[in-house]
Amino acid sequence: MKLNDLPTNNAWTLARRAERMNPSVIREILKVTEKPGIISLAGGLPSPKTFPVSAFAEASAAVLANDGPAALQYAASEGFAPLRQAIADFLPWNVDPDQILITTGSQQALDLIAKVLIDESSRVLVETPTYLGALQAFTPMEPTVVAVASDDEGVLIDDLKAKVGTGADKARFLYVLPNFQNPTGRTMSDARRAELVKAAAELNLPLVEDNPYGDLWFDNPPPAPLTARNPEGCIYMGSFSKVLAPGLRLGYIVAPKAVYPKLLQAKQAADLHTPGYNQRLVAEVMKGGFLDRHVPTIRALYKQQCEAMLAALDKEMQGLGVHWNRPDGGMFLWVRLPEGMSAIELLPKAVERNVAFVPGAAFYADNADQRTLRLSFVTSTVEQIATGIAALAAAIREHKG
Amino acid sequence: MKLNDLPTNNAWTLARRAERMNPSVIREILKVTEKPGIISLAGGLPSPKTFPVSAFAEASAAVLANDGPAALQYAASEGFAPLRQAIADFLPWNVDPDQILITTGSQQALDLIAKVLIDESSRVLVETPTYLGALQAFTPMEPTVVAVASDDEGVLIDDLKAKVGTGADKARFLYVLPNFQNPTGRTMSDARRAELVKAAAELNLPLVEDNPYGDLWFDNPPPAPLTARNPEGCIYMGSFSKVLAPGLRLGYIVAPKAVYPKLLQAKQAADLHTPGYNQRLVAEVMKGGFLDRHVPTIRALYKQQCEAMLAALDKEMQGLGVHWNRPDGGMFLWVRLPEGMSAIELLPKAVERNVAFVPGAAFYADNADQRTLRLSFVTSTVEQIATGIAALAAAIREHKG
Repeated sequence: MKLNDLPTNNAWTLARRAERMNPSVIREILKVTEKPGIISLAGGLPSPKTFPVSAFAEASAAVLANDGPAALQYAASEGFAPLRQAIADFLPWNVDPDQILITTGSQQALDLIAKVLIDESSRVLVETPTYLGALQAFTPMEPTVVAVASDDEGVLIDDLKAKVGTGADKARFLYVLPNFQNPTGRTMSDARRAELVKAAAELNLPLVEDNPYGDLWFDNPPPAPLTARNPEGCIYMGSFSKVLAPGLRLGYIVAPKAVYPKLLQAKQAADLHTPGYNQRLVAEVMKGGFLDRHVPTIRALYKQQCEAMLAALDKEMQGLGVHWNRPDGGMFLWVRLPEGMSAIELLPKAVERNVAFVPGAAFYADNADQRTLRLSFVTSTVEQIATGIAALAAAIREHKG
Repeated sequence: MKLNDLPTNNAWTLARRAERMNPSVIREILKVTEKPGIISLAGGLPSPKTFPVSAFAEASAAVLANDGPAALQYAASEGFAPLRQAIADFLPWNVDPDQILITTGSQQALDLIAKVLIDESSRVLVETPTYLGALQAFTPMEPTVVAVASDDEGVLIDDLKAKVGTGADKARFLYVLPNFQNPTGRTMSDARRAELVKAAAELNLPLVEDNPYGDLWFDNPPPAPLTARNPEGCIYMGSFSKVLAPGLRLGYIVAPKAVYPKLLQAKQAADLHTPGYNQRLVAEVMKGGFLDRHVPTIRALYKQQCEAMLAALDKEMQGLGVHWNRPDGGMFLWVRLPEGMSAIELLPKAVERNVAFVPGAAFYADNADQRTLRLSFVTSTVEQIATGIAALAAAIREHKG
């Protein structure tokens, strides 16, 4: 039998959920903006200057010398016990290591949560705007995503109560990113956190709290996590991507007993376990309080770059009717263009002037505000930020006509 | 507000699919058999003697010295380009690297395939028996799994035609593991492969071909993969877990253009990308034909251990009415107990005598053969195998009464 004798195979019937999947808007934008010499304020890539390469080199040598065969063998789906203990010790509330599930990055945590908590058409609540990667992770389980209105302090409790739904249409959870949010850079105030935890408990509404950026504060740590205020009512997600390195793909879930066993089973089915070598590397690097010495250097760098961006905005955007916020930490700030302008239409003009950003529309579950855009201050240098913001101002000036 | 003032939160509503998820039967059995001094013929753990620890130590140092920041940064969802090229070069048919998607172990490949191809109640065909991890990965998408009868050469074509279904109930794919199958150790013959590829093309039935063990042949390589015979009609899954080390969690998919983009979008949503550091480590280790020198040492070890197990079975099982096969490679062989015996009932008696196995019933989608069990010959030494098989024979003799 020759290959050419085979009937043409048009046999691939895709699952319905596959139709709802889309390429990441951000990754597509990043492709457009990959031209030589462009200053990208678009991506959410941590500064490679902050990666402790030599600490990882030492840890790699130590792990393979002391524990090589075990590091390279199949391992428990829950994660490497010393790493789970180190995370429990690191978190600012009383966490049992048995509640911790190591994930292949925070993105996998979102995938597992979606599998365990979302049925087709289940109502899922998110902030306005919200993290795009969460929407992508939830989409394959075909939820009905409903956006809760938010102000500078986070979700509005009255709108939450209006949107929570009842009976079979009761929301499965509210997904919320309280610290230096992606995309807006905003932080939920202590008072709003207290209100939210109280309202959620009264509504019997689980909270899914995502905290990849919480350690990247500039002057003061953010208020206590929602989960610390009601551990049985919340799933907490953390990550080593921003405080050590994203390329290792190491995140974790802290889950109450009501959902932990199912998250674990979903984890087994998804990839058996997160690479044991990577888990041992991070456990080794964390020994002796490394993060306490390392993370302040990231904070100082990002604060300096954020201040450079704010100074450039103050200088370059004068009289243009552009507004922006002043984040207390993290990687992003949020810009609103004047009435009638569209960030999506602005983007090609900005790229012509060698600067890129992400239009804010990508981050809305519904009713996108076309005037918004996200700027990252972590990947570019202070000099590039100054040049990039000047170019952006020029593009806005031209676009206004 | 104090924590104790909060209403008790009974808010966690699980998705319907979570009810169908179960802990891995094998992992539960392994827990039972984790007693000191037990000889485990149960697990599918590659021999740690085969892990090239020093090659990984050299590769770790080289990758971090030459390419550290990039290895630790976010990366493309498709995978590390030089690794995709190395895989394309390694595979025995003409593969475009653009068809290759790097996955977090083969298990993730199963998860992505399930998401993209399975709707609720979709018919999915598997071998009798089949790989348990595949059933676990498919379950969250709620398929109707239908087992196709198989003999020593693989799936029976007539039963495949009878089970393929029509219209909306037409099977989405047949999942098949042709080389040294887990759990049976059997290999699909060349003639059966040709028949299967022809029948699948005529039926317009996609094939999902899983090949984690294909390189572990003893005397002769297995026949050409199904995918090599009809690349547009098959998804192929490969893994570095058995030829290098499972703890790195590195697998890959080779997919036709009809499904690749959706598998890629599912991959983005699942964990963004497989750790770039691990991908670079394996690409570095593979340089200069390392696998051509390394894999023959694994083949020789496993062949020796398989022969030890066969010799012990020949010696110890005489007159017990026990049957087993003689694998041409891989990690497992398949045993059938005499009429009226149950492998599940035998297990505790075997564990009392310090030997463990996996009852075969776990590997059937339906109509489990209770007399079957799986033995692994890769984790234990030749001496342990001899002792373990003698203990197993004693348990069978006692169980027969």
